[in-house]
Amino acid sequence: MFEKITIIGCGLIGSSILRNINNNEISKSITVFDKSKNVVETIKKENLCSNIAKDIQSAVKDSDLIILAIPLSSYKEVLLSSKDAFKKDVLITDTGSVKKEVNKVFENLNLTNISWIASHPIAGTEESGPSAGFKDLFKDRWTIVCDTKNSNKDKVEKLKKFWEFLGSKVKLMSIEEHDHILALTSHLPHAVAYNIVKTAINNDEKFRDEIIKYSAGGLRDFTRIASSDPLMWRDIFIDNSENVIKILDEFSKNIDDFKKAIIEKNGDKLLKIFASTKNVRKEIIQAGQDVKSPDFGRKKN
Amino acid sequence: MFEKITIIGCGLIGSSILRNINNNEISKSITVFDKSKNVVETIKKENLCSNIAKDIQSAVKDSDLIILAIPLSSYKEVLLSSKDAFKKDVLITDTGSVKKEVNKVFENLNLTNISWIASHPIAGTEESGPSAGFKDLFKDRWTIVCDTKNSNKDKVEKLKKFWEFLGSKVKLMSIEEHDHILALTSHLPHAVAYNIVKTAINNDEKFRDEIIKYSAGGLRDFTRIASSDPLMWRDIFIDNSENVIKILDEFSKNIDDFKKAIIEKNGDKLLKIFASTKNVRKEIIQAGQDVKSPDFGRKKN
Repeated sequence: MFEKITIIGCGLIGSSILRNINNNEISKSITVFDKSKNVVETIKKENLCSNIAKDIQSAVKDSDLIILAIPLSSYKEVLLSSKDAFKKDVLITDTGSVKKEVNKVFENLNLTNISWIASHPIAGTEESGPSAGFKDLFKDRWTIVCDTKNSNKDKVEKLKKFWEFLGSKVKLMSIEEHDHILALTSHLPHAVAYNIVKTAINNDEKFRDEIIKYSAGGLRDFTRIASSDPLMWRDIFIDNSENVIKILDEFSKNIDDFKKAIIEKNGDKLLKIFASTKNVRKEIIQAGQDVKSPDFGRKKN
Repeated sequence: MFEKITIIGCGLIGSSILRNINNNEISKSITVFDKSKNVVETIKKENLCSNIAKDIQSAVKDSDLIILAIPLSSYKEVLLSSKDAFKKDVLITDTGSVKKEVNKVFENLNLTNISWIASHPIAGTEESGPSAGFKDLFKDRWTIVCDTKNSNKDKVEKLKKFWEFLGSKVKLMSIEEHDHILALTSHLPHAVAYNIVKTAINNDEKFRDEIIKYSAGGLRDFTRIASSDPLMWRDIFIDNSENVIKILDEFSKNIDDFKKAIIEKNGDKLLKIFASTKNVRKEIIQAGQDVKSPDFGRKKN
């Protein structure tokens, strides 16, 4: 399918791709590049890839598929330092959680003779780094591929096949639609999780130990989400600020309505809210996006 | 330890107690009462208890430990219909999530010759009903026992031993402290979970299918919490309204600060929030209240 694949960035997502494609069925050769010495040491120690590039230019040279699995705020620097070595017609994709801003980075660089098509595998855990990755991370999950009217159709098809090879299902979607839906399904829940944990802990320093101790009543589940990679989430909230702010405004309105129902002891209104949200869970389980006993897509021990 | 234990209400919590104590080590006899025909049928079918009382008066008669495992809004009715049959000096406890209001119910009934000592096992899943219960639900979890200055010390000790027999750790605490801490660790997360799911779904009916499909990015975890028993949660929010409103106000302030940081693209402020919440999770794991790969206290298959 490819002569050479290059993975830039070898954290949870990059290393999971690497663990999955590490054979000759999909590409004659696979090269990885990561600027972190610790990450490179882990790749060597765990024997994840035999071609670890020393510099980014040799990493991308002759590659016909480059995958950016790096923080959103690093795209510009990585592209600037590697673009002169790109092979003609190289397919460049990514794994980032927001598309509009990084798409602007590509547009502003005005790169010719490349095919940039954004991807977003909706998969991950609250852990980060190459040791957290695993082969089946993408299995039965969705990957969103953002094609545009200018996208080369053959390349889109090739990228689709690539993600399917990793076990993922693929959905084509516009950049705008992607950023809106992800703000609802992922960025809103994360924003709120951070603020729940902050509220619970800051509320009363004197009860901190008690709050940790009795966290099994709900809080602990939010701390899982609120322990995701801080750098990644800083970039996501800033890159998708417009959608996130709009949705947080609506969320705040719903919280105000909810408070009103509690103050008025309006049990019927509360029951109505709870019944509707209970149904959503059923639909998610039916859609195969969760199981009754979730393992949160983690590595099986 | 007891001559006769009576469990009123045989849902997730009541049936889990029943499954655990169903032998002669702790009590000579165990009686259960539930007003739902469906629940009684399940108890019979699953052979959970041989003494199923037909009416509440015979259920509590001669009992020296009565456990109320019923919705908070049912306490008054249950006590009114059973109080005339209470054995002298019976120990009455419960498993409810809020204490202040039900304590008032006891005070207003002015029952003499009974020992009312509230309990709250911090254990449960998002499921409900007797089939969802399991023997080890309380294992390594905390149970809060609310003693007051009037509590009979021997009875408090006996109740503590009872929960320890079920595998639970026990903490003594005042009613006020209990209701404050639970508002932070349990009622706030649940209130927010319902509102996240409501916001995500109501936002745009046209994207409903997409939102379900791509829920693996965070939303699905909140739908688990937001699918807990609606009746139970209606009662909790109304009974603990004072604490819940106060904490939701603080939460809303934190959300507003968070929005401000996003609008100002203040990455350092965002990173500071994320780093502090990441530490909380470490503390929870260290405190043994979660594992790196949580199973949410569910039944092992």
